[in-house]
Amino acid sequence: MEDKAQIQEAIKIQGEVVRKLKSEKASKEQIDEEVAKLLELKAQLGDDGKTQFVLKTPKGTRDYNPKQMAIREKVFNTIIRCFKRHGAETIDTPVFELKETLTGKYGEDSKLIYDLKDQGGELLSLRYDLTVPFARYLAMNKITNIKRYHIAKVYRRDNPAMTRGRYREFYQCDFDIAGQYDAMIPDAECLKIVHEILNELDLGDFRIKVNDRRILDGMFAVCGVPDDKFRTICSTVDKLDKMSWEDVKKEMVNEKGLSEEAADQIGEYVSMQGGMDLAERLLQDHKMSQSKQACAGLSDIKLLFKYLQLFHVTDKVVFDLSLARGLDYYTGVIYEAVLTQAGTVSAANEAQNDTNAEESVSVGSVAGGGRYDGLVGMFDPKGRRVPCVGVSIGIERIFSIMEQKAEASPQKVRTTEVQIMVASAQKNLLEERLQLISELWNAGIKAELMYKKNPKLLSQLQYCEEAGIPLVAILGEQELKDGVVKLRVVATREEVDISRADLISEIKRRTEA
Amino acid sequence: MEDKAQIQEAIKIQGEVVRKLKSEKASKEQIDEEVAKLLELKAQLGDDGKTQFVLKTPKGTRDYNPKQMAIREKVFNTIIRCFKRHGAETIDTPVFELKETLTGKYGEDSKLIYDLKDQGGELLSLRYDLTVPFARYLAMNKITNIKRYHIAKVYRRDNPAMTRGRYREFYQCDFDIAGQYDAMIPDAECLKIVHEILNELDLGDFRIKVNDRRILDGMFAVCGVPDDKFRTICSTVDKLDKMSWEDVKKEMVNEKGLSEEAADQIGEYVSMQGGMDLAERLLQDHKMSQSKQACAGLSDIKLLFKYLQLFHVTDKVVFDLSLARGLDYYTGVIYEAVLTQAGTVSAANEAQNDTNAEESVSVGSVAGGGRYDGLVGMFDPKGRRVPCVGVSIGIERIFSIMEQKAEASPQKVRTTEVQIMVASAQKNLLEERLQLISELWNAGIKAELMYKKNPKLLSQLQYCEEAGIPLVAILGEQELKDGVVKLRVVATREEVDISRADLISEIKRRTEA
Repeated sequence: MEDKAQIQEAIKIQGEVVRKLKSEKASKEQIDEEVAKLLELKAQLGDDGKTQFVLKTPKGTRDYNPKQMAIREKVFNTIIRCFKRHGAETIDTPVFELKETLTGKYGEDSKLIYDLKDQGGELLSLRYDLTVPFARYLAMNKITNIKRYHIAKVYRRDNPAMTRGRYREFYQCDFDIAGQYDAMIPDAECLKIVHEILNELDLGDFRIKVNDRRILDGMFAVCGVPDDKFRTICSTVDKLDKMSWEDVKKEMVNEKGLSEEAADQIGEYVSMQGGMDLAERLLQDHKMSQSKQACAGLSDIKLLFKYLQLFHVTDKVVFDLSLARGLDYYTGVIYEAVLTQAGTVSAANEAQNDTNAEESVSVGSVAGGGRYDGLVGMFDPKGRRVPCVGVSIGIERIFSIMEQKAEASPQKVRTTEVQIMVASAQKNLLEERLQLISELWNAGIKAELMYKKNPKLLSQLQYCEEAGIPLVAILGEQELKDGVVKLRVVATREEVDISRADLISEIKRRTEA
Repeated sequence: MEDKAQIQEAIKIQGEVVRKLKSEKASKEQIDEEVAKLLELKAQLGDDGKTQFVLKTPKGTRDYNPKQMAIREKVFNTIIRCFKRHGAETIDTPVFELKETLTGKYGEDSKLIYDLKDQGGELLSLRYDLTVPFARYLAMNKITNIKRYHIAKVYRRDNPAMTRGRYREFYQCDFDIAGQYDAMIPDAECLKIVHEILNELDLGDFRIKVNDRRILDGMFAVCGVPDDKFRTICSTVDKLDKMSWEDVKKEMVNEKGLSEEAADQIGEYVSMQGGMDLAERLLQDHKMSQSKQACAGLSDIKLLFKYLQLFHVTDKVVFDLSLARGLDYYTGVIYEAVLTQAGTVSAANEAQNDTNAEESVSVGSVAGGGRYDGLVGMFDPKGRRVPCVGVSIGIERIFSIMEQKAEASPQKVRTTEVQIMVASAQKNLLEERLQLISELWNAGIKAELMYKKNPKLLSQLQYCEEAGIPLVAILGEQELKDGVVKLRVVATREEVDISRADLISEIKRRTEA
């Protein structure tokens, strides 16, 4: 424990930081982060002897409040509907795996894996993605054919940029097709799925970049990159979406020791973008055509585009030789979807100030994936391969965008689906309210009442306004005598007496979506 | 590493164990557990140098396969529909909390908490339940009123009896009402919810036992239990559903040092069961009426029964003085639902052998909860209280029962919702199939095709039979020429030509639920 005076000084400084951020109208996330630090300091002090602990969630994590959950549910429903439309089953795996299951699958990123404390028994780690547990599941159950989706949280001890929708605990949303099939048919379906989901979520325009690991490897070979440098040069190429070619070249030559000539040749290729025509041209390219690998990849890209034409999605798909993707386990086609405009979000946020329109040109990847034919074999005792291709939807970034959209919209997000409130106009009618609401619940009506013996009519009506409940069933002495309920429409304040016998069908009629 | 010969010997013995279990037709879980041990041994051997690691999930955890997921989804949907009918919002919290958030909340069970390894930064633990994170959430966000549900996994380093549906990673399914309200109104709603859910899930007959912590404490006081023994005697009473009164008494007297006289007095009370009448009688009881606490509890039980009568659920509810419930944080009414018959499950399993019908009289608790008015105050820096009452549905046990039911049923569980397969009767029609299926997907139809260039018609039809797909759209040269699709009903083998223009509406008409 540090000295009290020291902590008090730290609290003073941190308080200044928070005030400054607030006065600068910094983002909510940034302020929250600094406020959390402040609270932590204050809790260390614990000077009133009351609370010794910090009221916060762990670093890089967050709670979802009801409004965020309503948005999350809507996004999940759209995505799951699409996966089900394509005939996918779903599975679930434990949140932790044996440590050794994850070992050797993530290269350098392995340091970001959360380990559990050794409390006796097995050594465990939190899952880092859903792909490795999927491969483990296939090998363990000797499954050679499956089309499945899996939506679950994964864990990375990264330094998260929470303002950009990056967390240490976040959802992944994966669709994969495992099985030995004819080339490019399942691969094309994965791209069709990305196209459908991004369209339905209405996030603005997007592009799906495709490439192939074999084309990258072939390109490195014909440009004179030594075999043992393929992976490291590949991860440098992967930075082209964030860095200029000049900086990427510098890294290749200065840090990774590539010859300037090889780098320049790579530079020529990775600037190429196109469609099926580009694949055809490269198949004729005197250098590229020397690589068998590259030719196999280019032929598959041609076939892929043919299928994508039949799906009518080529308007959004571009063959881009600069697309590399970080993960080691890809073996064939790879792809990544990016939003090319912030869409309605930036439109709303920047209505009064469209100077930074350029900044919003690319808000980054919202989906990615590819073919990984070797991963399951790493788990199978006999090394049997199960070819796989899949896509992961970047759900957290999509949440962030949808949340901003909801903030900017004048329409309120409802967090419940309540159709009616059972209210009373006079005192001493709790029992009658309980009896009526029980009838409604039993009939499948979504209904609420206030948990008070004698609530005021006004406060019952106000609650409906706030919660967006469209109808009120009002009970009073007169209504009970007449065997009716006064049905009030909250929006119009129109009131009409409905007989008890007709009430349920009347509510259903009025609240049908 | 042990000696190779030793491991080989162990493998031989373990192989015998597995064979024996199989020949005895032991339960799948038991066999799986022993097979896992066998695989672990074999992996230790790793004699082909191929796999060094064990293909298994961590102890006490399991994967869910598509069939289990389909059942799980159905159960969740029923439960969530009920929570939403009662106007609940939902929230989510991280899977881990700061270690100190969980400290001091679970008494002796704290040793079952999973800690994360200290990798620098905060000390973290996996959540043990959803109630403590909920209380932390309320205090942190200064929320004084909310009705929320939360369905998520929790973690306990218990020695799980997986055959009875107990795991180290399992779902909790909580509904809670927080806020200062008039007595027993939210409490009664929680019981109504349990009643609705257990009815809808159709698990057979059930009882909901209710009691009140204040009645228990009052009873202990008037029976002469010393104040500092209330909690420990309470946890002994809690064992009455598994142990006879004689054994419970022995534990009280011999292990916990209670006087025989006090134990006998408790014995008289805890044998009492009834309804509102019992609460009235105990309010007149010369001993019980001396305790203010007990009287407050008994009055509330009376009020609760009055509200439950209005909800028409008293047929299943019994006031049972032996109900204690383990957790420390309850302060008022407590309840627990038990299935009183294994219902269709035992009926199916024991059709040929109903000698153990008695065993299936109680399959244990499937829901439980109560009032905890002090927990949020433990987190609030100023100790502000937020009264709460809630219920947790014992979802894992319900899954186990539903799985058994599905096993016993002749009806197959479908794992997808696919309405139609797009098939071809001749070769070289892949492009036409892709084009048609794309149209169907875009119209919201759930459709599949085989990922082969030239699949056989028979294998396409067989796939439909296996997967339960009701319709097939068959393309052939003739159909293409005529602008039609041959629509085949898998069950009846009836075939009819439908024009392309009418196909979508025809599929929708035929597959409407």
